Amino acid sequence: MVKNSIQKLSIVGLGNVGSHLFDAFAQENIEITHVVTRSEPSQRVRAKSEWIQDPKDLPSGQLVIICVPDDLIASIIAEIPVDCPIAYTSGSVSLSNLPKRDELGVFYPLQTFTKDSPINIFEVPFFIEARSTDFASKLFDLAWVISRNVNYASSADRKKMHLAAVFINNFTNHLAHISKQYLDGEDLDFNHLKPLLKETARKLESQDPISIQTGPARRNDQEIIQEQIDALENPIQKELYRLFSKSIHQTYFND
Amino acid sequence: MVKNSIQKLSIVGLGNVGSHLFDAFAQENIEITHVVTRSEPSQRVRAKSEWIQDPKDLPSGQLVIICVPDDLIASIIAEIPVDCPIAYTSGSVSLSNLPKRDELGVFYPLQTFTKDSPINIFEVPFFIEARSTDFASKLFDLAWVISRNVNYASSADRKKMHLAAVFINNFTNHLAHISKQYLDGEDLDFNHLKPLLKETARKLESQDPISIQTGPARRNDQEIIQEQIDALENPIQKELYRLFSKSIHQTYFND
Repeated sequence: MVKNSIQKLSIVGLGNVGSHLFDAFAQENIEITHVVTRSEPSQRVRAKSEWIQDPKDLPSGQLVIICVPDDLIASIIAEIPVDCPIAYTSGSVSLSNLPKRDELGVFYPLQTFTKDSPINIFEVPFFIEARSTDFASKLFDLAWVISRNVNYASSADRKKMHLAAVFINNFTNHLAHISKQYLDGEDLDFNHLKPLLKETARKLESQDPISIQTGPARRNDQEIIQEQIDALENPIQKELYRLFSKSIHQTYFND
Repeated sequence: MVKNSIQKLSIVGLGNVGSHLFDAFAQENIEITHVVTRSEPSQRVRAKSEWIQDPKDLPSGQLVIICVPDDLIASIIAEIPVDCPIAYTSGSVSLSNLPKRDELGVFYPLQTFTKDSPINIFEVPFFIEARSTDFASKLFDLAWVISRNVNYASSADRKKMHLAAVFINNFTNHLAHISKQYLDGEDLDFNHLKPLLKETARKLESQDPISIQTGPARRNDQEIIQEQIDALENPIQKELYRLFSKSIHQTYFND
């Protein structure tokens, strides 16, 4: 049984990530003493935490978890009392690019969060990093309270995981948008695609994508490929189709 | 209750689609009298059907479902006795591009099938088309025996659904391959991405992809975008990343 030494903390930013961490900690009886947000948080949050707007007012000596966009992290750190340990949740910001602090670390959940969409946080992989082994270990134990998938990772490895996540999540989601927009424009129902989308994801949980690839590009069916490119109107989508076909061809026909 | 008039049929081709249809019909006590395949089918199939290698030997007057690659459909049709009604399972081949027959139709399941991976065929959307209303209606009723999602669709609409399916399935799967290949090459574990992949698909079942897009391109974070492009080695993958970012930018920033 891991012993977690952090029983109180504050959170800066209650967007998609911050609000899910808030709920996860609250659920496990970790006290969130303060939340820092520009606009007033919900009644639910205010019932459990004190709302402040200025990071300078955070209690000294107590952990602060920063859940703000990447380009705001450095400036927020500068405003937090110097004796507060700090962790931030970004996938891409290197520890070495931030101002030196006694205790500064990373608490990165590799998942896509939407504010009002519940998630099983116990399955979410967390990646921990800090300059001191001692602080890294404390953050590890804290993550272990809310997840059973906690790992140490260097900034370099965390960036690599984030890049892969962009392909799996951001680009996949955009492919779904392109499909939906195309079918909407043709007065066809995107719902017909949902069983396929579900099956695509289900297969990927247990099978290697390289072995289950199907479709015109996998068969090198140039006639269908050209027909489908011609059917698209948006030049960027035509080019995406062309590139995917080229990339699939390269994968299976070694050219 | 729909009355299905087709109680016996034959199947040409037992690949990913044919083998799933075989099992689905067998399950519902539709008799598959003959299967036509080049190599010997499994004992399981031979216990229920007669194996033949030449389509000329198919019983006359009885429905044949053709489950072969698109470019072989026309030549197989030419070999089947002229009084056999025929349906084929392709998403892309137009009815009007095939040789005229008395009864020729389409029986297209919009799903990705893998031979040994079970699937809930009751949820799979089927798209039916035929030159005669009467034959279309018979194929509709036959599809209804194995699925509760059966629709009529013209060749043009079927092609559009197939194009959208290529984005949702083929390209999504290839994105997963790119992620996995990249992480494998960096000695990182693709399994860490699986909860994210699962959540991405779960969200898309109930939410509009346009409203849940996240990531560097959605935030127009040019620094991270450039860093991630630089981290990729394969030129096609770099270009895919660039194009996705451009397409996402176009979607959200109207340029």
